[in-house]
Amino acid sequence: MAVAEFAPTHLNTRLNTSQLSSLSTSLSNHHRNSLRLIYRPRNTRISCSIAPSEAPVATKIDEAKNKPECFGVFCVTYDLKAEEATKSWKKLINIAVSGAAGMISNHLLFKLASGEVFGPDQPIALKLLGSERSFQALEGVAMELEDSLYPLLREVSIGIDPYEVFQDAEWVLLIGAKPRGPGMERAGLLDINGQIFAAQGKALNAVASRNVKVIVVGNPCNTNTLICLKNAPNIPAKNFHALTRLDENRAKCQLALKAGVFYDQVSNMTIWGNHSTTQVPDFLNAKINGLPVKEVIKDTKWLEEEFTEKVQMRGGVLIKKWGRSSAASTAVSIVDAIKSLVTPTPDGDWFSSGVYTNGNPYGIAEDIIFSMPCRSKGDGDYELVKDVIFDDYLRQRIAKTEAELLAEKRCVAHLTGEGNAFCDLPEDTMLPGEM
Amino acid sequence: MAVAEFAPTHLNTRLNTSQLSSLSTSLSNHHRNSLRLIYRPRNTRISCSIAPSEAPVATKIDEAKNKPECFGVFCVTYDLKAEEATKSWKKLINIAVSGAAGMISNHLLFKLASGEVFGPDQPIALKLLGSERSFQALEGVAMELEDSLYPLLREVSIGIDPYEVFQDAEWVLLIGAKPRGPGMERAGLLDINGQIFAAQGKALNAVASRNVKVIVVGNPCNTNTLICLKNAPNIPAKNFHALTRLDENRAKCQLALKAGVFYDQVSNMTIWGNHSTTQVPDFLNAKINGLPVKEVIKDTKWLEEEFTEKVQMRGGVLIKKWGRSSAASTAVSIVDAIKSLVTPTPDGDWFSSGVYTNGNPYGIAEDIIFSMPCRSKGDGDYELVKDVIFDDYLRQRIAKTEAELLAEKRCVAHLTGEGNAFCDLPEDTMLPGEM
Repeated sequence: MAVAEFAPTHLNTRLNTSQLSSLSTSLSNHHRNSLRLIYRPRNTRISCSIAPSEAPVATKIDEAKNKPECFGVFCVTYDLKAEEATKSWKKLINIAVSGAAGMISNHLLFKLASGEVFGPDQPIALKLLGSERSFQALEGVAMELEDSLYPLLREVSIGIDPYEVFQDAEWVLLIGAKPRGPGMERAGLLDINGQIFAAQGKALNAVASRNVKVIVVGNPCNTNTLICLKNAPNIPAKNFHALTRLDENRAKCQLALKAGVFYDQVSNMTIWGNHSTTQVPDFLNAKINGLPVKEVIKDTKWLEEEFTEKVQMRGGVLIKKWGRSSAASTAVSIVDAIKSLVTPTPDGDWFSSGVYTNGNPYGIAEDIIFSMPCRSKGDGDYELVKDVIFDDYLRQRIAKTEAELLAEKRCVAHLTGEGNAFCDLPEDTMLPGEM
Repeated sequence: MAVAEFAPTHLNTRLNTSQLSSLSTSLSNHHRNSLRLIYRPRNTRISCSIAPSEAPVATKIDEAKNKPECFGVFCVTYDLKAEEATKSWKKLINIAVSGAAGMISNHLLFKLASGEVFGPDQPIALKLLGSERSFQALEGVAMELEDSLYPLLREVSIGIDPYEVFQDAEWVLLIGAKPRGPGMERAGLLDINGQIFAAQGKALNAVASRNVKVIVVGNPCNTNTLICLKNAPNIPAKNFHALTRLDENRAKCQLALKAGVFYDQVSNMTIWGNHSTTQVPDFLNAKINGLPVKEVIKDTKWLEEEFTEKVQMRGGVLIKKWGRSSAASTAVSIVDAIKSLVTPTPDGDWFSSGVYTNGNPYGIAEDIIFSMPCRSKGDGDYELVKDVIFDDYLRQRIAKTEAELLAEKRCVAHLTGEGNAFCDLPEDTMLPGEM
């Protein structure tokens, strides 16, 4: 039903996109995905391993009408209101995760299922989006979720079609993205991943909850977020986030290390701009033990010349040491990002998120995704923080990351429905460890 | 100091072990490890990256007297009683984890740090044990823990010497073990890993808390646990556990699937015996919705011929699907095992753990590690459940896994100080997916 309701909008967007897709390297695939919205077969992948041969005690197996892709024990129906232990629980929420067979998700899904993120009275349904290639791995993930017996995890479904997986989703965590291949330019990566996020934006627009919150992790995440929201015009742009929380966490840790204090003493940390090497970890507004960082760390040379690099090099150092990219701490930062939206921000503090610039108080260009300081009442929404200060050094660096995001935006105009793309990205700004 | 105190016992054990080590394939290494207790250089690996150039605000860097292996920001001192947010917290506990650079630990450590296991007012110190080869990976894990900013995680130290890492440990999670190489018999694996667990038992005996709780995950875990506790005579044998909780969780899930109920309706699930293919998932005593399983699942053929295999094949199926062994759900089951000891067992229910048989009410041979049904008051201790029933089928299967454990015990006599080893293991009983 949601499909029919939003089909006209979707078709509109599709036509625009098709007309302007001269730079797209895989139009036919994109086109097919779009058409699938209208003609797509339902229930193409059903994976429900349950085969009860006994009459169940008090519950019955759902006829899978509304859960076409349920997995294993998660195909069983249940009645939370019928049980003493669960009748005070909140209404189930749907959480969709892309790249669900990857390592970041392998940490994140279990955190979501444990209740650590949404609380001990919030039952959840996990909807896992993978690819044809990763479908068996998705089943493996679902099996491990089964074996974990998390009482709050009531439904798990797996699929490869975002129009099915995003159905009624209230949170969507877009982790999956193609890694950059050998010799690929940033422009090429923007195009390849941009197409994925354009298609996922269309799917969100068609089938997700009208108030869905979307957090984009797949890189280049700011511009992927922009593409995604431009393809989902019926969802408020304010509901889309690009993850810069790992950068924020790393910045807090490096300031704590330098000052010789525990990391819980560092607050008011902003990451400005792009999740790339042009990002600006803001030591002008950050505080240590409630004091401005510069009053605590007097080594201005370190702050200006080493601090940012230390934050940015973290992923690269980790790959050298550990041999893998930072899956666990990335998952933690996604948890932090969600928690920051569903719990009230502590008085006087804030958090960073890459959000849509639309009337921002900092003079930053409008209509891009820019990481800025945010506060939340815990209702899933946020407001920008007004009382921040700027100096020339901070302004100059913000201008640079802003220019990069504007250039990235021009580079994906064919995917946002805003004309022909023009790519003039000056340099490689991928963060180390995220190649 | 603790070393001097327990040196006589240790030497005693060492001499016995040396005399009887004719089956040991790496005695010289074992011998060197033993001698290291007396002559070992302290602080051989110091890894503290902090280099403050400013006067810290209110805290000072510890001179590393008692924290020789602290890592990064975790080298900073702190005063929980001085802060409003933390002054009501409990006293810090030390948790040591071996195999800390592996995939199971990579899930487990973040669960421990999050507060999910020991609660939101329990600060923890993580002591990570790795090998010379994995030392850089340990640093990588510690870096990700730093970047996660968990407020409850106050100390992280890394090392390769169990005598340092286990110092004052109150919980020890022994995950690290050598995997079975190509062509290696179970007897060979028992010997190689047995030596690791003999050395770790000696280290526990010398330096751990006198009431340390030890959970052994590395395979073959029952007999590794026996070896470990035999080498730690000054720690109560009751404090040692072999992990069979993943088997229990999988068994509950398979019964739920078969009955068409959600897994939270399955209770009183016992895994009897060895963590191997002779293990006995007990469908005679287990309940579904409070009723005996056999009253709910009338398919006796399935219960007797398929259920156990489904539980045991789970790991193998997962490797086929997902390409990796079950790290995430294993970590969840370790969390479950700890929680079952630190929170009161729900009325009428129980959990399984591989524990030392010493006056058990079931007629099972004494002086082995056997998985049995346990209840806890939540004080870290447990008692065996008395009201279980047996039938011939259950008795026969328990006898088989009991015989296997007695054979394994004879096979490692050189490591428990009980004479010459004699190996007559009848068949390969490693669980699929744990090769």
